[in-house]
Amino acid sequence: MKLGQATIKDIAKELNVSSSTVSRALKDYPGISDETKRKVKELADKLNYRPNAVALSLRKSKSFTIGVIIPEVVHFFFSTVISGIEEIAFANGYNVILCQTNERLDREKSSIETMLSNQIDGLLVSYSKETTDFEHFSKLMKLEFPIVFFDRLPDLPNSINVTVNDYDGAYQAVTHLISQGYKKIVHLAGPKNLTISKKRREGYIQALEDAGISVNENLIVECPSGTEKESFDVTIKLFEDVDNRPDAIFAHHDIVGAGAMMALKSIGLKIPEDVGVVGYSNWQFSSMIDPPLSTVSQPGFNIGEKATTMLLDMINNKNDYKKEPVHVVLDTELLVRKSSVRL
Amino acid sequence: MKLGQATIKDIAKELNVSSSTVSRALKDYPGISDETKRKVKELADKLNYRPNAVALSLRKSKSFTIGVIIPEVVHFFFSTVISGIEEIAFANGYNVILCQTNERLDREKSSIETMLSNQIDGLLVSYSKETTDFEHFSKLMKLEFPIVFFDRLPDLPNSINVTVNDYDGAYQAVTHLISQGYKKIVHLAGPKNLTISKKRREGYIQALEDAGISVNENLIVECPSGTEKESFDVTIKLFEDVDNRPDAIFAHHDIVGAGAMMALKSIGLKIPEDVGVVGYSNWQFSSMIDPPLSTVSQPGFNIGEKATTMLLDMINNKNDYKKEPVHVVLDTELLVRKSSVRL
Repeated sequence: MKLGQATIKDIAKELNVSSSTVSRALKDYPGISDETKRKVKELADKLNYRPNAVALSLRKSKSFTIGVIIPEVVHFFFSTVISGIEEIAFANGYNVILCQTNERLDREKSSIETMLSNQIDGLLVSYSKETTDFEHFSKLMKLEFPIVFFDRLPDLPNSINVTVNDYDGAYQAVTHLISQGYKKIVHLAGPKNLTISKKRREGYIQALEDAGISVNENLIVECPSGTEKESFDVTIKLFEDVDNRPDAIFAHHDIVGAGAMMALKSIGLKIPEDVGVVGYSNWQFSSMIDPPLSTVSQPGFNIGEKATTMLLDMINNKNDYKKEPVHVVLDTELLVRKSSVRL
Repeated sequence: MKLGQATIKDIAKELNVSSSTVSRALKDYPGISDETKRKVKELADKLNYRPNAVALSLRKSKSFTIGVIIPEVVHFFFSTVISGIEEIAFANGYNVILCQTNERLDREKSSIETMLSNQIDGLLVSYSKETTDFEHFSKLMKLEFPIVFFDRLPDLPNSINVTVNDYDGAYQAVTHLISQGYKKIVHLAGPKNLTISKKRREGYIQALEDAGISVNENLIVECPSGTEKESFDVTIKLFEDVDNRPDAIFAHHDIVGAGAMMALKSIGLKIPEDVGVVGYSNWQFSSMIDPPLSTVSQPGFNIGEKATTMLLDMINNKNDYKKEPVHVVLDTELLVRKSSVRL
């Protein structure tokens, strides 16, 4: 057996397991033990087994299908991105398949393998909150497999990205709160490993500094899971000390903002009179709650359109994005509603 | 050339188009003219070209991937179903790919073709509002390709289905409104071709009849698109005649209910004092709006779990569902909140 010609069957035979187990172990599928995965991968390395991704990059025929990896389909922002993606894809004769990672790295990896085995022509990715190592993307990019990242900016030197100006969105939101006379502004922040969270935090800090308000680190509280319940609990705690209460909240997304509003109401505080609240992402419900929640609107549909246009150009070699990194940044818009207006 | 051995290339040559055009025409992909599609399909029929689906049904190896076809990912109900699907799929070593149809039949058809070319092992389907002919499903079922339908019940003799008891959910909601002293109850209904809409309408009618209230067809108004704006406009119209106003609304889902609430507020009517409102599906926002919206909760997660368990059994031949139709019906639960309580 020559190197480079090892098959899944060879590996299976050597390890005395089924071909299906080998195939699934190589793809990091769930349901296979870590021990088996390790053994299979070691032998595959030793035998120089050529993995799918390489085979794929050598493949000539197109499937006219693009894959989309998103953290959560229920997130309103992502659903608007998907609409933008589909608009461009369908208009160009491409179909779209989606996988959600539920913010988990293992699911992200196995979703990518699933999509690659399914012969997609390119990939649009918003990676999971757990992803800090981007090796599973960079190895594909080295093989010139078309990938465009959206919303969440990876720590990769040559990635093609479409994001929104999260820094500016946060800066505008906090500057607006200050203009309404709020002074002690809490930031209910997102997880630190996401660039979007960092940028929103930076925008919050810069807006305070530009207004001459000193930054109090105790007022920046992480809400990593982003559920209503989490921000409810965090808010109750922040407002415990009756003599020393904050007077505004800038939440890293609307669900977090809504949870905070429920907490404020539960302790008898009035919005916006006592406490002003601004969210982020303009979820569908945000204009329907009481009072309607001010928020930063991200151009989800445009992100999807732009990212897909770039991906199709890469797939069809219309543009040589490989030469230099391309980073498209789209503007956000502050939507002022009742929750933050008291003047 | 023998019959049954025609290839895509043969068809392409005969029609003087590219193989890619033939392939996409056969798959009903967008971006190919109807005229070309017709020509390609006619010749494929004539030459007895064996389509993908047949080839697939003859295929032995598994992909450990299941496909899910849903109308809209943003719909909170469907996102809970997806969570249930993924729970069972991942636990059994399967991955999940999703396609959304945006309630369009053409996208449904091309999504199915995409997924089949991608060698899924089985399909979970909630079909689009436009789908009235189920031929594209029945031809797969004849080939014994595993399909389980959820939420929306197809008009097919041997389908395997998991639905909720929509009739009973509606019956409970309307009975609750009557028990709160509401008498002139509007039904903002869903599109007529969906079984779920029919069942909810039947539940509404039966609840009125059982309470001795005669059914007024003018109070049943269709909101086919299901947007807030649509139900806002419909509600304004229904309440135009000040001397003859309804006193309650049973909406076929929560977005419709929320639109109606905004309309009622805009004309100065109080909820629940003047008008009671009950929605359907328990969207994420429903407990956050003012007043919180009473609604019928569907067990989305359980539907996803049950449908996936049945599909995996079919894929692995553990159960012979082919022998007789199987229809699992799960119970709904009425969640009473402030929007419908006035006693």
